[in-house]
Amino acid sequence: MILESVPRLGAELLALRDGLGRALAEDVYADQDLPPFDNSAMDGYAVIAADTTGATSENPRALRCIAEEPAGVTVTERVITGTAVKIMTGAPIPPGADAIVPVEDTSAGADGRVGILREAVSGAHVRRAGEDVKRGRIVLMSGVRIGPAEMGALAAVGKAEITVSKAPAVAIVTTGTELVDVSERLGPGRIRDSNSYSLLGQALNAGARVSMVERTADERSELERLLTLAAQTSDIIITSGGVSVGDYDLVKETLAKLGEILFWKVAIKPGKPLAYGRIDGKPLFGLPGNPVSSMVAFDLFVRPALLHMQGISDVTYPRVSGVVSEDLRHKPGRREYVRAVTVWQGEGYVAAPTGDQGSGRLSSMLGANSYIVISEDQGDLRAGGKASVMLTGRR
Amino acid sequence: MILESVPRLGAELLALRDGLGRALAEDVYADQDLPPFDNSAMDGYAVIAADTTGATSENPRALRCIAEEPAGVTVTERVITGTAVKIMTGAPIPPGADAIVPVEDTSAGADGRVGILREAVSGAHVRRAGEDVKRGRIVLMSGVRIGPAEMGALAAVGKAEITVSKAPAVAIVTTGTELVDVSERLGPGRIRDSNSYSLLGQALNAGARVSMVERTADERSELERLLTLAAQTSDIIITSGGVSVGDYDLVKETLAKLGEILFWKVAIKPGKPLAYGRIDGKPLFGLPGNPVSSMVAFDLFVRPALLHMQGISDVTYPRVSGVVSEDLRHKPGRREYVRAVTVWQGEGYVAAPTGDQGSGRLSSMLGANSYIVISEDQGDLRAGGKASVMLTGRR
Repeated sequence: MILESVPRLGAELLALRDGLGRALAEDVYADQDLPPFDNSAMDGYAVIAADTTGATSENPRALRCIAEEPAGVTVTERVITGTAVKIMTGAPIPPGADAIVPVEDTSAGADGRVGILREAVSGAHVRRAGEDVKRGRIVLMSGVRIGPAEMGALAAVGKAEITVSKAPAVAIVTTGTELVDVSERLGPGRIRDSNSYSLLGQALNAGARVSMVERTADERSELERLLTLAAQTSDIIITSGGVSVGDYDLVKETLAKLGEILFWKVAIKPGKPLAYGRIDGKPLFGLPGNPVSSMVAFDLFVRPALLHMQGISDVTYPRVSGVVSEDLRHKPGRREYVRAVTVWQGEGYVAAPTGDQGSGRLSSMLGANSYIVISEDQGDLRAGGKASVMLTGRR
Repeated sequence: MILESVPRLGAELLALRDGLGRALAEDVYADQDLPPFDNSAMDGYAVIAADTTGATSENPRALRCIAEEPAGVTVTERVITGTAVKIMTGAPIPPGADAIVPVEDTSAGADGRVGILREAVSGAHVRRAGEDVKRGRIVLMSGVRIGPAEMGALAAVGKAEITVSKAPAVAIVTTGTELVDVSERLGPGRIRDSNSYSLLGQALNAGARVSMVERTADERSELERLLTLAAQTSDIIITSGGVSVGDYDLVKETLAKLGEILFWKVAIKPGKPLAYGRIDGKPLFGLPGNPVSSMVAFDLFVRPALLHMQGISDVTYPRVSGVVSEDLRHKPGRREYVRAVTVWQGEGYVAAPTGDQGSGRLSSMLGANSYIVISEDQGDLRAGGKASVMLTGRR
């Protein structure tokens, strides 16, 4: 439902150097063959292969060196029987030649001659024009997230500027009268607002930019003002807190007033009181206020939405199976996401839960690289038993 | 040798909001208990557990509600036998109370009374002060790379500013007379300089900042000038090209002239002609010019150095084992890194090589998330056989 309801964002032009981590919004084709011309894969000598038949270090073949060809320079001399052109890696194969003899298989001879110490077959150490990518072929498809290899490939086909999906502008609004800023003194009954920071990190890692980070007490008018502003200035709104069943859980009410609730509550643990809706067409994720619930609900619901909005099709973390290192209690009913450190040991993964799994325990997220997923109809897990594991990486 | 020879960088103070992806350069302790006070894990009523003994929906216990406590506000009313305080998630447990009855297990009564529909045990839904982290305990250790969970934890302990390792300043110098910029027209024998872009992406992903990107023809004096400048302005120098055996392979010569070569050539494929040395104490990695060789050598040698310079201890990609999907030829002698797409299927990983593995084929890196590692003393691999796989991720 989320993936169907979030809008796809428009595209923008970007200098290639600024493209890392962004999602390509165009199909990119090769404007020419890659490599553009037949060239040498080695430093050595361009020869006619037939001239080297029978060459050994005991019985070298002498060829007359008629030219020298560094990379970036094109010689026009034609290699004819009995001659060779000295050539560097990447330089075009001179006309007439059909093989390269690596410099290691040659010896310097007298009078500008070179000794060939090993037989070469036709085509040896020649990289053919277009053998990497043929001109006109698709190199990268729209929706690919640009990593270092994609940066290189885009440069290779001359894309100094690229069309990428706009980065979703995310508004983060944390709610709760008990919250104070990280730099403020803690009064009685107060706690520091950590969710705005973990959500900031999660949003940036999902390719978003953060257009607004605000905090409000549980106060109707201020929350309305902030959510209205967020809907005007952002592509997607993330709140934390205020979605439970209490009288002060105002986010849900305000969402219903300013827009619409599409669903509320999901049978997961932690993260159950998740609310999802829209204000002025902008998706709003009402995440629970507990630090862990907020992070888990982000990973499961907001991250896929942010990636999808950028046109990326692979929006979920990979799933593997692993052996759990200790007994895990589980009451059927909700699907549980147990924070874990999962490492490869011998022939498979071992997933070790990160201590107590209370939804308030931010320490259970520290160092975790995965969730052990216990399905809603499962009971307790035994140490040594298999479980499904979602690999989030250390992030 | 590399990890021993690269310098550790100094530290700098940073606003927490700018810390994502950086390496912490201080041990961080809890300045207070987390949570700072006993508080309610649910919206509901703070009660004396003994008052609820035997309560059921058929036989509720009525308690007088003496106060209402939203989060962020501290009531001073004491809960005595027969009374309750209405309480929100996160609010401090009022004096006298020892359990929370969730609002779902209550019914509104007349005259400010609340009906308790289920027995509560002492401590139910109470989060104890310090149960997440005790005051004075270490929360995060120096050398941790800061992800979203770490952002949250740092906020929770009041670290508005954090001490992080300086990001290594990387100079990228690509060499080769055949190279033209991505925006330039390709003349005969010319190719586009793609390595400066893939290396830029790889350096950024390893937490570095890029202080200089320059390209030079195979020209002694210009290369000397650029490497001297790079050593003055950067923490680490990466070159591509010019490290092979040819007459025009000037990087090695220039490195020897301006500084020292610590090693040259590694028994790997691709990436063999890697040179490593120092100029004025600054590490220089002379990467091969082939696009794939350059990326592989970066992953294996430069990335660990960049992470180590930031004080990060976990510097290598994780290794798993997987089944190879097709026959792979391998001549013993060099350790080979075959670019592959590795996915979990059923009960294990299957690694599928990304087509032709020529060191010039940038397309073999596209979409790859791993290397199949064939050790130097191994022969051919058979489809269906096991192999060691290095998971790099899509990056």
